[in-house]
Amino acid sequence: MFNDPHLSPLSGVPGEARAPIATPRPLRVGMIGIGTVGSGTWRVLRRNQAAIAGRAGRGIEIVAVAARNVARAAAVLDGAEGVELTDDPLRVATHPGVDVVVEAAGGTGPAREWVLAAIAHGKHVVTANKALLAVHGNEIFAAAQQRGVAVAYEGAVAVSIPIVKALREGLTANRIEWVAGIINGTTNFILTKMRDEGLDFAAALGQAQALGYAEADPSFDVDGVDAAHKATLLAANAFGMPVRFERAHVEGIRGLQAIDVACAEALGFRIKLLGMARRDLEEGEGEDPGVELRVHPALVPARHLLAQVDGSMNAVLVKGDACGVTMYYGAGAGSEPTASAVVADLVDVARLAADGTAANRVPHLAFHPHARQDLAVKPIGAVRTRHYLRVPVAAGRADAMAVVSEHLARDGVSVQAQQMHAGPAAEGDAAIDHVLVLTHEAADARVQAVLERLREVPDLCVQAPVRLRVEMLE
Amino acid sequence: MFNDPHLSPLSGVPGEARAPIATPRPLRVGMIGIGTVGSGTWRVLRRNQAAIAGRAGRGIEIVAVAARNVARAAAVLDGAEGVELTDDPLRVATHPGVDVVVEAAGGTGPAREWVLAAIAHGKHVVTANKALLAVHGNEIFAAAQQRGVAVAYEGAVAVSIPIVKALREGLTANRIEWVAGIINGTTNFILTKMRDEGLDFAAALGQAQALGYAEADPSFDVDGVDAAHKATLLAANAFGMPVRFERAHVEGIRGLQAIDVACAEALGFRIKLLGMARRDLEEGEGEDPGVELRVHPALVPARHLLAQVDGSMNAVLVKGDACGVTMYYGAGAGSEPTASAVVADLVDVARLAADGTAANRVPHLAFHPHARQDLAVKPIGAVRTRHYLRVPVAAGRADAMAVVSEHLARDGVSVQAQQMHAGPAAEGDAAIDHVLVLTHEAADARVQAVLERLREVPDLCVQAPVRLRVEMLE
Repeated sequence: MFNDPHLSPLSGVPGEARAPIATPRPLRVGMIGIGTVGSGTWRVLRRNQAAIAGRAGRGIEIVAVAARNVARAAAVLDGAEGVELTDDPLRVATHPGVDVVVEAAGGTGPAREWVLAAIAHGKHVVTANKALLAVHGNEIFAAAQQRGVAVAYEGAVAVSIPIVKALREGLTANRIEWVAGIINGTTNFILTKMRDEGLDFAAALGQAQALGYAEADPSFDVDGVDAAHKATLLAANAFGMPVRFERAHVEGIRGLQAIDVACAEALGFRIKLLGMARRDLEEGEGEDPGVELRVHPALVPARHLLAQVDGSMNAVLVKGDACGVTMYYGAGAGSEPTASAVVADLVDVARLAADGTAANRVPHLAFHPHARQDLAVKPIGAVRTRHYLRVPVAAGRADAMAVVSEHLARDGVSVQAQQMHAGPAAEGDAAIDHVLVLTHEAADARVQAVLERLREVPDLCVQAPVRLRVEMLE
Repeated sequence: MFNDPHLSPLSGVPGEARAPIATPRPLRVGMIGIGTVGSGTWRVLRRNQAAIAGRAGRGIEIVAVAARNVARAAAVLDGAEGVELTDDPLRVATHPGVDVVVEAAGGTGPAREWVLAAIAHGKHVVTANKALLAVHGNEIFAAAQQRGVAVAYEGAVAVSIPIVKALREGLTANRIEWVAGIINGTTNFILTKMRDEGLDFAAALGQAQALGYAEADPSFDVDGVDAAHKATLLAANAFGMPVRFERAHVEGIRGLQAIDVACAEALGFRIKLLGMARRDLEEGEGEDPGVELRVHPALVPARHLLAQVDGSMNAVLVKGDACGVTMYYGAGAGSEPTASAVVADLVDVARLAADGTAANRVPHLAFHPHARQDLAVKPIGAVRTRHYLRVPVAAGRADAMAVVSEHLARDGVSVQAQQMHAGPAAEGDAAIDHVLVLTHEAADARVQAVLERLREVPDLCVQAPVRLRVEMLE
């Protein structure tokens, strides 16, 4: 197990205990699925086995693999000995010779069955399946808690970045104020293309698809669903609440226009698809107003570090009351970046006492079950942010600025800056000007109401006005 | 213990186990020193006690404090009951009613005695004292290993950022290629001032001192010693080697000239004080060429995320073979940011089984002792990087570019770009031009040798030529 020359027992380190210790037997892993995530995990475990064993204190060995296509799986395993191959996932989930099950199949239906079966048979589980945990997490974590096993899921959020560990273990001193992340690489790639090359959404999506950054059916990514799965897990760990994906507010980037990307840039902002979870610490002391859980495109200051996160990269900001703002950055997808998280979870399991008594050392959702609270999730209308508005008006309409100002003022929406941006419009022949507004913080529903009424002002709007939220992330 | 209304037992979470579990007794903490770090720890533990207990699964209570000035300590504790106050650190280190000792006194001499005494008495230790661990870490970790207790030190590197946890636990799947960090806030504040305001080092240092970012005697920070302590700990955790501070190459920023900050900017770079640890994975397979452990100012590409880390903030980049490049960012100093790390370490200890069997779940330096190797640290002369050179020559000396090129070529130093930068010089009256060179990768000693010989060319250099290393961080 320790046959790498670089990890052979050393001598001559002053004072280091050298007494030979009986090495515990290797951790035996069963894997369901050997596609992108599974094959990466296999590869990394083999390539770095000595370094991994040196850190874990014991070897980590894959002893059983379930795959739909057994022949293809055999090709990946490339003649490795001692690995049982099957097309029956339940065989692996319940295998008597397996300590931990890696669920690398994806999806939410059968994967739920397999994971629950593994837990029922006393196996630890490692998965990078955010959809599974965002939808069935409460059931799965409760079962694991009751059975005394761990369900580890570092790879479920921003794969290469140990953000689950940071939230669950690194920042435990803090009351978390907010978490904000670029947690979907596909949309960030598209937004980067739109900005750098002035493309509209459809063209940028086409490039992303051609380059393999977006799937043929991109809706899961571009409509914000994938980011909402991850934001749900971040919120649960930040605030000590169950996973509440069904209450998340989810908007994607499909409706985003090139002109708004350009106008945002002109105002000193960039547009990013953010996953946000926020809790007001002050209000929280009295009647609890709930937390915010939302995914939507937002303007962020161009000088902010998060605005520099381009292409398919991910980054998560966490603000705590003691640590201040911290940021975590890395690849958000890919075979080996995901394997990096899956294997780290395996090392965590391997490092636990062999008798498993410390299996729930770190609670699944950061807080121990008795300390969790089913916090209400605010309706999006009650969420207060700054806003960017663009109101397209007929060129030369002299009172446009005044009319927009007046309507905002009437509803108590305070303006931080307002300016006229001369067309051309995104489409159409007639000359169009755009009234651009940056507001101070205002409730979402109130700003929506102003927009509705602006649309009803006779002869004002020549196209639908646009509203995007602004996050200063301070 | 769980009397915060936000953390009261919840009902109605589907499927969550609700059986009342006997809560283990609180973790009892003794603290040595109650200055910046200690008072922050006290404050955070009190303010967030419910959230912390909800995460840890048990309360965390400070039961004894040692301080040089007991009256001042009493003022900090502000009448808190149940805390024993003493002016004898050994009393706390060996206190029968204490499970964990927080060493918040600083320094390396007496702190070493107290920490070793605590370990000998079976206490876990938490410290943010990087000097102590960089100098005495091997002795301290060996003692802790032998006694079966944990010495936790998240606060010793880039305080608010859980980078020790990321390296020891989050990235355990990887062979780490390199770690590079802005890990001293004082010098980063000074470098930011030099760039933004065109100040020379002395003026920027003066501002840093006036604002409290630098001490009256700033040598520990500006000469790179503090960063080298932290880089030493990062290297040990990245590569599985003992702490080898005495072998680190350490250069500070005292000699940095304003003209080089400006020239770097003109070439598309920024100058940062980097702490670097690097290991060549390929070479490592055969005869081991050793690792690099060095602190020095370096040019980094202005568009790189690390170049955007300004003021007193810290950031650490880690490149692993599976995860790729990841980055961790946050405050690098301050009372509560440090407390954030100290308390997270206490939660880690509290989460271990009460019988302490899992105390060394995570090895002190990432790798278990038997898997560590006392890797050689390369002499700086053998380290290969790109280089920035500035050769000040008399204005109008027509062959200056050719002479510089020729000397570089003769020693096999390949040039990537070379240009003439017209003075004025940093000082003096005579007109000076500057030959600016960016080289490809070359051994440090070879570039030094070229500079020596350039100085000997008759009538060429009118001031000492300058050499800075360049790191692309890809």
